[in-house]
Amino acid sequence: MIASFIDGQANALLPISDRGLHYGDGLFTSLRVHDGRPCWLAAHGERLRQGAERLALPMVAAAVLIGEIEQAAALPNAGVIKVLLTRGDGARGYAPGPSSTRRIVLVYRAPLIDPMLYQQGIRLRWCATQLGEQPRLAGIKHLNRLEQVLARGEWQGADIGEGLMCDAQDRVIAATSANLFARFGTELLTPALDRCGIAGLCRAAVLATPAPGFTVAVANLSRLDLRSADELFLSNCLRGIVPVQELAGQRYPSMQAARRWMQSLHPALGLPTPI
Amino acid sequence: MIASFIDGQANALLPISDRGLHYGDGLFTSLRVHDGRPCWLAAHGERLRQGAERLALPMVAAAVLIGEIEQAAALPNAGVIKVLLTRGDGARGYAPGPSSTRRIVLVYRAPLIDPMLYQQGIRLRWCATQLGEQPRLAGIKHLNRLEQVLARGEWQGADIGEGLMCDAQDRVIAATSANLFARFGTELLTPALDRCGIAGLCRAAVLATPAPGFTVAVANLSRLDLRSADELFLSNCLRGIVPVQELAGQRYPSMQAARRWMQSLHPALGLPTPI
Repeated sequence: MIASFIDGQANALLPISDRGLHYGDGLFTSLRVHDGRPCWLAAHGERLRQGAERLALPMVAAAVLIGEIEQAAALPNAGVIKVLLTRGDGARGYAPGPSSTRRIVLVYRAPLIDPMLYQQGIRLRWCATQLGEQPRLAGIKHLNRLEQVLARGEWQGADIGEGLMCDAQDRVIAATSANLFARFGTELLTPALDRCGIAGLCRAAVLATPAPGFTVAVANLSRLDLRSADELFLSNCLRGIVPVQELAGQRYPSMQAARRWMQSLHPALGLPTPI
Repeated sequence: MIASFIDGQANALLPISDRGLHYGDGLFTSLRVHDGRPCWLAAHGERLRQGAERLALPMVAAAVLIGEIEQAAALPNAGVIKVLLTRGDGARGYAPGPSSTRRIVLVYRAPLIDPMLYQQGIRLRWCATQLGEQPRLAGIKHLNRLEQVLARGEWQGADIGEGLMCDAQDRVIAATSANLFARFGTELLTPALDRCGIAGLCRAAVLATPAPGFTVAVANLSRLDLRSADELFLSNCLRGIVPVQELAGQRYPSMQAARRWMQSLHPALGLPTPI
């Protein structure tokens, strides 16, 4: 970590009564930094606002938060900004009570990304850990992330790049830290996230960015559906569009749609754009 | 809060990279203190050990932890000890990685409990927030508690003492911070917690403490089942056995079983024992 700020002050120590620690009572988002500027800043701010509304967390002034993120992004070597909003300090007990939202802004170096990733794609596996259904929390990036921790703990080593998670009905939902798209002919589909999962901003960007010759839609997808897909790719705000080379032994040689959306979305993220 | 200790040192400030904050990656338990001694200490230690095993969290030396809890309980005015174990500091990302478990011991005053509570019982309501099913996390007291926060946020004011939560199949699971028992004649039943919910130590004590004339068992209970119950009570390590006077308008005048288990369990907790 390069730097950390709590409520606008350089600070690496959190009061021990913070409800983010006690209950995961808060939200987060991670922004990519390119040339000293936070990418997709307005969308990240809006995501935090929507999440705060869902949790009835008093929202901080957008201008203050945006200013802090911009300052953090301008620090030398800043590559990723992680913003956490928590319900601040509370008395013992679950009752939310009156509280003032705490802003935590963390600055990290850019993750090392092999540019070949975007040419060759990554290998995926299935995770045994399922996502529980919770419509009241589905879609938002809150701080209750033990399911992802358990799923990500299922494998080690760099040969597997990500793991796909299903819900208890065996509907495919997402990778542990990225959303999934599957192409069937000219139709690109991404799982519905109204019962579980996190609706990522890069997923939203794919849905909102039409590409000639393709349609994009939200759907329920089973494991079996993926076997007949022509192409898979992942989306994530830090790595952009990542093609999938293989899932549990099945190869997906096409990167037709992935390339198209890399061309649309990667320039703003400062990520490679394969021809 | 009276005092706080991190890894055995008096300290109220947590490193901002703690995975308890970032992902709720950890466990907790709350102990009642009576006459300067932590109640049910061995059971709390064992609960943490079992939870750590479930999360693959390296367990701290039991003797160290128990010593710290005993020292904390001996502080003036100590009434409740909350122990949190987190996966310590981590790099960015869900992967658990090598870590060393962080011990957090917090000391609070005793909660104010009106002794009439044990004579008259409390009033309950239904919570609209459901518990998501997640067998891998069910039963343990981990730090992902947004469901309880949302449920407890559904009402204010002291006239309602607790809210009952169901799963998505409308099975009754527990109150927001206590387990539930329902008596049908001589049979006492408590909800199964293999899909969601927290298996409290006071619940375990009720299940393990036979009372002449009653049987106790774990079962699936629907909302409708509770309408035909002769008696309801809650169990919790801090308040012990709490009779239920009313649930959503229906009255439960009998406190026959509640009194019996208060007599068995309350002396060790230093709680009132109605005759």
